[in-house]
Amino acid sequence: MCYELEDKMKEACGVFGIYLKDAAQESTDAARTTFYGLYALQHRGQESAGIAVSNGQNIQLHKGMGLVSEVFSPEIIARLPGKIAVGHVRYSTTGDSQLVNAQPLVFSYLRGMVALGHNGNLVNTNELRERLATLGSVFQSTTDTEVIANLLARYSQDRLEDALVKAMIDIRGAYSVVLTTEDKLVGFRDPFGIRPLCLGEIGGNYVLASETCALDTVGARFVRDIAPGEIVVVDSRGLRSIQGLTCPNCAHCIFEYIYFARPDSTIDGINVNRARRAMGRQLARESSTAADIVISVPDSGTSAALGFAEESGIPFEEGLMKNRYIGRTFIQPTQQMRDLGVRLKLNPVVEAVKGKRVIMVDDSIVRGTTSKKIVNMLKEAGATEVHMRVASPPTIYPCFYGIDTSRRDELIAAKMDVEGIRNFIGADSLHYMSVEGMFSVFNTDKDWFCAACFNGNYPIPVDD
Amino acid sequence: MCYELEDKMKEACGVFGIYLKDAAQESTDAARTTFYGLYALQHRGQESAGIAVSNGQNIQLHKGMGLVSEVFSPEIIARLPGKIAVGHVRYSTTGDSQLVNAQPLVFSYLRGMVALGHNGNLVNTNELRERLATLGSVFQSTTDTEVIANLLARYSQDRLEDALVKAMIDIRGAYSVVLTTEDKLVGFRDPFGIRPLCLGEIGGNYVLASETCALDTVGARFVRDIAPGEIVVVDSRGLRSIQGLTCPNCAHCIFEYIYFARPDSTIDGINVNRARRAMGRQLARESSTAADIVISVPDSGTSAALGFAEESGIPFEEGLMKNRYIGRTFIQPTQQMRDLGVRLKLNPVVEAVKGKRVIMVDDSIVRGTTSKKIVNMLKEAGATEVHMRVASPPTIYPCFYGIDTSRRDELIAAKMDVEGIRNFIGADSLHYMSVEGMFSVFNTDKDWFCAACFNGNYPIPVDD
Amino acid sequence: MCYELEDKMKEACGVFGIYLKDAAQESTDAARTTFYGLYALQHRGQESAGIAVSNGQNIQLHKGMGLVSEVFSPEIIARLPGKIAVGHVRYSTTGDSQLVNAQPLVFSYLRGMVALGHNGNLVNTNELRERLATLGSVFQSTTDTEVIANLLARYSQDRLEDALVKAMIDIRGAYSVVLTTEDKLVGFRDPFGIRPLCLGEIGGNYVLASETCALDTVGARFVRDIAPGEIVVVDSRGLRSIQGLTCPNCAHCIFEYIYFARPDSTIDGINVNRARRAMGRQLARESSTAADIVISVPDSGTSAALGFAEESGIPFEEGLMKNRYIGRTFIQPTQQMRDLGVRLKLNPVVEAVKGKRVIMVDDSIVRGTTSKKIVNMLKEAGATEVHMRVASPPTIYPCFYGIDTSRRDELIAAKMDVEGIRNFIGADSLHYMSVEGMFSVFNTDKDWFCAACFNGNYPIPVDD
Amino acid sequence: MCYELEDKMKEACGVFGIYLKDAAQESTDAARTTFYGLYALQHRGQESAGIAVSNGQNIQLHKGMGLVSEVFSPEIIARLPGKIAVGHVRYSTTGDSQLVNAQPLVFSYLRGMVALGHNGNLVNTNELRERLATLGSVFQSTTDTEVIANLLARYSQDRLEDALVKAMIDIRGAYSVVLTTEDKLVGFRDPFGIRPLCLGEIGGNYVLASETCALDTVGARFVRDIAPGEIVVVDSRGLRSIQGLTCPNCAHCIFEYIYFARPDSTIDGINVNRARRAMGRQLARESSTAADIVISVPDSGTSAALGFAEESGIPFEEGLMKNRYIGRTFIQPTQQMRDLGVRLKLNPVVEAVKGKRVIMVDDSIVRGTTSKKIVNMLKEAGATEVHMRVASPPTIYPCFYGIDTSRRDELIAAKMDVEGIRNFIGADSLHYMSVEGMFSVFNTDKDWFCAACFNGNYPIPVDD
Repeated sequence: MCYELEDKMKEACGVFGIYLKDAAQESTDAARTTFYGLYALQHRGQESAGIAVSNGQNIQLHKGMGLVSEVFSPEIIARLPGKIAVGHVRYSTTGDSQLVNAQPLVFSYLRGMVALGHNGNLVNTNELRERLATLGSVFQSTTDTEVIANLLARYSQDRLEDALVKAMIDIRGAYSVVLTTEDKLVGFRDPFGIRPLCLGEIGGNYVLASETCALDTVGARFVRDIAPGEIVVVDSRGLRSIQGLTCPNCAHCIFEYIYFARPDSTIDGINVNRARRAMGRQLARESSTAADIVISVPDSGTSAALGFAEESGIPFEEGLMKNRYIGRTFIQPTQQMRDLGVRLKLNPVVEAVKGKRVIMVDDSIVRGTTSKKIVNMLKEAGATEVHMRVASPPTIYPCFYGIDTSRRDELIAAKMDVEGIRNFIGADSLHYMSVEGMFSVFNTDKDWFCAACFNGNYPIPVDD
Repeated sequence: MCYELEDKMKEACGVFGIYLKDAAQESTDAARTTFYGLYALQHRGQESAGIAVSNGQNIQLHKGMGLVSEVFSPEIIARLPGKIAVGHVRYSTTGDSQLVNAQPLVFSYLRGMVALGHNGNLVNTNELRERLATLGSVFQSTTDTEVIANLLARYSQDRLEDALVKAMIDIRGAYSVVLTTEDKLVGFRDPFGIRPLCLGEIGGNYVLASETCALDTVGARFVRDIAPGEIVVVDSRGLRSIQGLTCPNCAHCIFEYIYFARPDSTIDGINVNRARRAMGRQLARESSTAADIVISVPDSGTSAALGFAEESGIPFEEGLMKNRYIGRTFIQPTQQMRDLGVRLKLNPVVEAVKGKRVIMVDDSIVRGTTSKKIVNMLKEAGATEVHMRVASPPTIYPCFYGIDTSRRDELIAAKMDVEGIRNFIGADSLHYMSVEGMFSVFNTDKDWFCAACFNGNYPIPVDD
Repeated sequence: MCYELEDKMKEACGVFGIYLKDAAQESTDAARTTFYGLYALQHRGQESAGIAVSNGQNIQLHKGMGLVSEVFSPEIIARLPGKIAVGHVRYSTTGDSQLVNAQPLVFSYLRGMVALGHNGNLVNTNELRERLATLGSVFQSTTDTEVIANLLARYSQDRLEDALVKAMIDIRGAYSVVLTTEDKLVGFRDPFGIRPLCLGEIGGNYVLASETCALDTVGARFVRDIAPGEIVVVDSRGLRSIQGLTCPNCAHCIFEYIYFARPDSTIDGINVNRARRAMGRQLARESSTAADIVISVPDSGTSAALGFAEESGIPFEEGLMKNRYIGRTFIQPTQQMRDLGVRLKLNPVVEAVKGKRVIMVDDSIVRGTTSKKIVNMLKEAGATEVHMRVASPPTIYPCFYGIDTSRRDELIAAKMDVEGIRNFIGADSLHYMSVEGMFSVFNTDKDWFCAACFNGNYPIPVDD
Repeated sequence: MCYELEDKMKEACGVFGIYLKDAAQESTDAARTTFYGLYALQHRGQESAGIAVSNGQNIQLHKGMGLVSEVFSPEIIARLPGKIAVGHVRYSTTGDSQLVNAQPLVFSYLRGMVALGHNGNLVNTNELRERLATLGSVFQSTTDTEVIANLLARYSQDRLEDALVKAMIDIRGAYSVVLTTEDKLVGFRDPFGIRPLCLGEIGGNYVLASETCALDTVGARFVRDIAPGEIVVVDSRGLRSIQGLTCPNCAHCIFEYIYFARPDSTIDGINVNRARRAMGRQLARESSTAADIVISVPDSGTSAALGFAEESGIPFEEGLMKNRYIGRTFIQPTQQMRDLGVRLKLNPVVEAVKGKRVIMVDDSIVRGTTSKKIVNMLKEAGATEVHMRVASPPTIYPCFYGIDTSRRDELIAAKMDVEGIRNFIGADSLHYMSVEGMFSVFNTDKDWFCAACFNGNYPIPVDD
């Protein structure tokens, strides 16, 4: 949709990989499992999808623009036999999307063929591209992934595992990578563990995925998370783990719990739904007020809203209804369709909010424009008061580790104080969760997280 | 999706119409408003979409297979200038879908051109087709709509209003119709008011829509429901109403409130969300049991589940997560992906249900196969007990008034008693809402509804 | 192509039909044979294509916009089993092309289902539509075909054969029709035999086609032409012929020989290639002049140019080369691409024409704009003289019998005399074949032809 | 088409480039001119098409599978503003076609961005890939083009012109390349001049193209051929020429004149149509025989057949008609459609060949299967004798310089002698042109050509 229906941060990518040790030559089980794994990770990226499969000698790739279910068909899967597969989904931005940037990236180098999918963002890409270009590298895209590929080729005299460690020394930033060579499936994660990556098992075969919901969907059992800085290699001898880089202190992205990940996933030991509900309760402790009902901005605000209602004792109501059928066509609305951009997706339930004092819970605010429209809609629907509660602190600092950064200057909380924002969106009151309150929910050291978008503590220095 | 993700009744259609009294010759406002109106009614039909526009002399049509946002583009809307528009969305079945059956149907007859969109189902189609064929009519599709068109042509010596009344005398069944001639917008509804149809106003112009959520989306104000048996005609002189047939007693489809309509719509005076929540409370009064949590089968079961939790005092949890990215590609899953059909769309939140006694609320059960898989998933996720509660009575009788009838023999409640169904789905207990309980929720005479699918009381006799 | 690459008359349609007496229930032989028959008739229409197949109980249809090879795929053919098939290709105009106008038209009426494909044009359509509308008919398209269908339905109390004769009495104009009921294949031709229709046989089964080249392509043997006014019916009892209307005197379209038909076809006893070559010889006898080479405007002018060269003794050269890869995209050419519209398709062979006196032979001239550009190109390429010779008389009168009539006022010969045209196109001399010369080529009475476009003698009066 | 309609050698590619010195920033003239240039070169490759445009700072690319007119639309051209453009069309094979292999290849390296299109084939690719891989290069495709790109990057410390000369020293084989950097248009040709490349001028701007027909189509004036081993660089200072490698002796591909190039092109001073016609005359001198008519296998055999008729005095007739509407759909023909693969495309004109002794002229024979079917068709059509004459010598040796090499073992002349071939195709006599006769036509030294496919004299040694 051309106009903004979602005033949300955008996740970069999702990755999936599988190694079938006993797959027949012509089996497409690896590709099909990867298809469904990507399907479950679709919320992490809707711009493009791709699957690469190794049959032991060769790697076949199919990728395209669009949803997993649009890019793949039975005919295409039938052309992807093999025992190892990696898949990738990529996010959708408003800018020009290009197929050349879709992943996995397949390339051949001295040691053979590789397919590589990357979730995250490097912070020293320009420096690395320049260094590599001086040595004669050519680049056909603008992705970090191509930089990683060229680094591997630089170290092609080394064993793959050693080359990977050397490349990890060179690159800085957030990366959860799955790759397949002709005969190995490899997964590795940056030393801070910023983006998630987990290991599963199905019928004695290993699976890698960004989130556990993908393991559930394909019927795999969760084994463990990949550790920060860890490299896992799966081949005919089984799985082995190398601690590529030591983890100084991990820095798991806290926004995965707030908004990005699917609620039924468990990441680095913490269930997302449980975390969101707990954040709603904490938010109520910090900022409950006299009201008749608690409503959520669906779908992502619902867990926190339920927690808020539970803690505050104020009943939860479905005050906003969501239209599930969203397409990409943009037809210019007529003059008289006020607030159409929001109303296409959300519509107030008048009978639920009319004459009521409403507490509206959302998970986060980025630009504030959507919140403003929703508050206005609720008032038009007859709400006597609208109190907005946000289940995360103000997002003040840009993210350099894999979240859509095209909107840095659009972070309303970087430009206004809370009272200014309240005034802008037209709410009767506005409270964000405190940073301390957020950390308190997790019962863990706050250094365990990257919360740079809230507190400006960037675990990895950024030059670019 | 080829395998059944949704074990639900299927709604037939949604209709929308608008008359812009002062629209410039080349304005596409009527078409654009209709586009967004259909967008809001998309839940009523996803098979095909169409818009027909009259510019005063001529009627242009565009229709196609797929979602509204797939069928229309800015280029297509630009080719649809005019002041009166009618639109239609049609449901998706597993059988052959054909463009020839898509609506609106545009035809010319003695008095000029007409575009007609129909929601509902006639019960004496065969008799009418035979009668018309004997008089020399030809039929190019298998739709009821073509029968209505040929009846209008039979009465072409009459004024349009009189022809409509005569046609309403001939046809029996459920019909909410919007049509446009070259210079009039017309809406009419069967004498029982089985399917919904309402009137709105935007900037002094009249709008017709299946549900009020479409009025909200386009920014129109709700005026009133079209009465059973009423014909409304909008032209340059304004709106006038004709009571085409008297309403013996109305018989509004109760399933609109249970499942079909959007929760933010208000139909014939009753808000859908409020009704569902009240049904959940009634269900709790009838059948609450000792349990730790109440969960819903999202999305349609959530209102009732919240009502159940409220009445029973048992906390509501999000125990099942829904994947929002569903496409139409069917890739054969591998052997090891058990229950894939359901898991693609729903996944249990293990941390929420593990070790818990769970009450699972759904709005209805059709074949029971999906319920069986969900119960099984919940048990595998560690639920110690699963008590299923259904916020409607058993659906025992087929519908002849516009609901997908291809599954009459697939109604599990027509073949088994409640204990048999409980055993089939593997729940620890199962309760449906009582028929009396259902009616009690509405505070209205039970003859006000058509509840034939529950009690077999068909308001209109069925011959075909 | 949006700009005019072809300054030619446009043929309306091609039809094909087959009855397989012993086809198995699930055989797609009828559909496949029809596919290839239409493929061979593609020159008669490139706008849309359709095939309808009867399996004895039912008629299935597939049609779409585009070439036969674009509209049909193996999957679609697989859905068209049955023993009787009819197919249709329709021409491409610059105006709005609509699927609703594509053929065959499939309809049901009192006696069952019919699929009907029509080549030609009726001249009393409006009168018939009005008459039928008064009786209550509705029309969903603007085609003559739907008028024929409604007439058949009017006479549905009669046997099909009688109904056809009655309909033939009502309709006036050019029509070569193939139709299939559930169990009969029927072909009929107007009493003047304006458009072609022939009968073939393959493996004991009957085939109907617009031209013999379609028989050749599918491997069928030519049996005979359908006579003017004749109805042939093929069913389980074999083939029988009815003289529906007597032929006052036939009036075969002479333009089929000049331009429309494929050179390898033989129509009503005359081979098209032989006729064109003879016309070239006659043209030389009438208008040869001192020159160095004879060239043709490929491809349709080549047969006549070879005849001209043969008769005149002046050598034939390939002076213009044709680009075979023409698509439909229109990219605005830059300022400096002069004459691009023609040069995209035709380019002079400089070495062949430089310094030469050139006789350029074309089959006909419609608007003259393309001829003008070609003459100019040849002069720029160094031709010292360009003498244009046209292998048909000036086209002065519009056609009402099935040829694209959107350009009546664009017939240059209706607006200028030959000297005016010569001046307009910039040729050093210009000669059209004489009307007498044209008839002399065929060794037949000139009343045997419809040559109305040349001499204004319309065999059927035109009211509309 | 899946079955072989064309039993012909396949050309590899066509290239086009333009530098507009005074183009406005937002002008799409360069892209549009390139579109039409590729359009005229479409016969050189129908698999994929691409255009890359430099706006001075940046290079934008669009490429896709299919014909030029399918890959580009006005919307796409509008997104390609800039002053320098290069374009490429690639051939169609029966194997897997992949977008990753489509050209131009766009890459960035130390000195900026480059877009590169290549016609020809290198013979030491594997050696170069290995050498480059050892130095750390990665390859994302299997094209020679990527090898050239990586070589340029190796020499990125040098000026572009020097890097090009060094790369030309490394690569061996046939190459005619156009490339654009951010501010220069470059063309270069291998030292034997195997594939064509010429220079044109339009409105003071330079154009590069594979054939002169592309210059004609866009309205450009032919300036000269690029010399073997020459590099031309066009930038804001104008055009300069560097003799990159000296030409030991040129070796222009003789098959360009026999079959590949368009007849209206003039390559390295020789007009293609004139050459073909002269070959037909020479063929007649070598092998004329008593016959009634000369016919050609259209379209490529026609020039030679006309020459044959002229020299022999035997009249030329159009004995075979070609269906111009060929698509890509494959519908399985029925049992009774004999020879369908050929008949879809070619049909004998029975009246022309019946009872005649026929000389059938074709430009070349590859596998002989099509010739066999055509001879058979002509005999069935009543030809009393069929004498086949081939306007080139037997093709005995595979080509390694850019012609489709997937059929090396399918060269019938490599497996049988002429009598064996005659027997296989069923002709009454068969004569190929002699190698000496072929050279005699050109009035030039035979070392001026590469005629390796006929005589095995490979100008460049082949290791791979």
